[in-house]
Amino acid sequence: MTDFDVSAYLENRRGAINAALDAALVQTDDDPGRLREAMRYAVLDGGKRMRPLLVVAACEAVGGTLDAALPAACAIEMIHAYSLVHDDLPAMDDDAERRGKPTVHIAFGDANAILVGDALLTHAFHTLAAGASAAPGGRLLGAVVKMAHHAGVDGMVGGQALDLEAGQEIGDLAVLERVHALKTGGLYAASGAMGALSGGADDDVSARLEAFGLAFGIAFQHADDVLDDDQKGLRAQALARVDELTASCLDNVASLGEAAEPLRGIARWVAHRAHAAHRGEIKD
Amino acid sequence: MTDFDVSAYLENRRGAINAALDAALVQTDDDPGRLREAMRYAVLDGGKRMRPLLVVAACEAVGGTLDAALPAACAIEMIHAYSLVHDDLPAMDDDAERRGKPTVHIAFGDANAILVGDALLTHAFHTLAAGASAAPGGRLLGAVVKMAHHAGVDGMVGGQALDLEAGQEIGDLAVLERVHALKTGGLYAASGAMGALSGGADDDVSARLEAFGLAFGIAFQHADDVLDDDQKGLRAQALARVDELTASCLDNVASLGEAAEPLRGIARWVAHRAHAAHRGEIKD
Repeated sequence: MTDFDVSAYLENRRGAINAALDAALVQTDDDPGRLREAMRYAVLDGGKRMRPLLVVAACEAVGGTLDAALPAACAIEMIHAYSLVHDDLPAMDDDAERRGKPTVHIAFGDANAILVGDALLTHAFHTLAAGASAAPGGRLLGAVVKMAHHAGVDGMVGGQALDLEAGQEIGDLAVLERVHALKTGGLYAASGAMGALSGGADDDVSARLEAFGLAFGIAFQHADDVLDDDQKGLRAQALARVDELTASCLDNVASLGEAAEPLRGIARWVAHRAHAAHRGEIKD
Repeated sequence: MTDFDVSAYLENRRGAINAALDAALVQTDDDPGRLREAMRYAVLDGGKRMRPLLVVAACEAVGGTLDAALPAACAIEMIHAYSLVHDDLPAMDDDAERRGKPTVHIAFGDANAILVGDALLTHAFHTLAAGASAAPGGRLLGAVVKMAHHAGVDGMVGGQALDLEAGQEIGDLAVLERVHALKTGGLYAASGAMGALSGGADDDVSARLEAFGLAFGIAFQHADDVLDDDQKGLRAQALARVDELTASCLDNVASLGEAAEPLRGIARWVAHRAHAAHRGEIKD
């Protein structure tokens, strides 16, 4: 155990990610209507940036630079942002507010919100594939495949469809975990793999960081469930799973040495948060 | 002028494209809910497949094989299909029927239709990037960039946003052409470039086939306007533009020899159709 300062690391990298997102969505003189303005509204709103932070930490863990990670980091955050815009639509969760401001469909109308989501999803792939990177072309193409896989029918969107069908409350931890694995874990798994590939990792190391990301994403979601009053029956089980998943995270990066300390720090932070919540120290 | 049989060529290649689309959306035992079934419903419905046909013809024009073109061909058709699913939503055009059957949101509900569109858009990138191809990795990455560019905020989705803002009737040919160039031309430009890159073309030839696609797409849309009673005032102007754009198409592939005959045939076919419509021989 080193005295690595996770909070300072996350704060620093979050600043770089926010600057890169701003640059990736810069407005131009012949922008079509207000579309890019609405895309910026959806993305540049001070989210926690957990997925792009995982991309950056994974890239650095394999010896890649922060700069090499930024296209993939921006891409995965755009995917996350588009999914929130579409989730908030009246036909989906019908939410009027997110992070203290009106949701995109309230601010720009339903039709534009559909287009904003579509444009962000598309722009994520543009940002990833067009971004300058130290990674050989073949590895970046692999990153495109990973992002598309985990964001699509066999990942996040599939999880959303499953969640829609299952209805409001899921009382079985195995079913809940499948939804978590697809809906939330997918983008974290993609983040681990994309970070590794952006940093030039081979398939084996990339697969380990993908596994790290998946376990981390599910742990992160279970930690939220520990905080969630609607899921009381599953709290103790969820806490035990957080510990198992955190151990799996640490195991997957055991061979990576000092460069993986940020990844280890992030994984331990989620477990710490879940335990604190269970002891009643956090009322989120 | 050769006696190349355009209809027979299109018929043959359309069959191969439909088979490849079916295979790219094959259902699995652990499909999440009915999502993939709904994706198949949206795509496998006997569209004209003009964009994927352009991909195939462009690939063959540079000496590539049909097989090398199919991942890009399927990808661009999935993009087209997702755009129709989202366009048909109540918040957009609110259409209940398409090609003689209920639209996706009528058949599967609004929430699922949003997810079907998102999943198809994402799966398009998966299909393109994961598809086995004769093209070197760097060229396929270039194809990802082209598809994302022309499908997104600076292409199709941008054109849709502009169209939404402009309202129902556009009485100025220059404004109408900008909407056409973005909303329709974008995917055709991408098709030309993606076909060329899949076939191993260099940047110069790929740029020519991208220009071919853009001119073709706008000509195709103007030809539709010639058929459209709502756009009477622009008919004669639109017909003249079809001829100019067709000449531009032929010019862009002048150096490609016999292998480009399918492309030339398709371009001439659109001009022929527009003239026949103007003479009153086609009442589409």
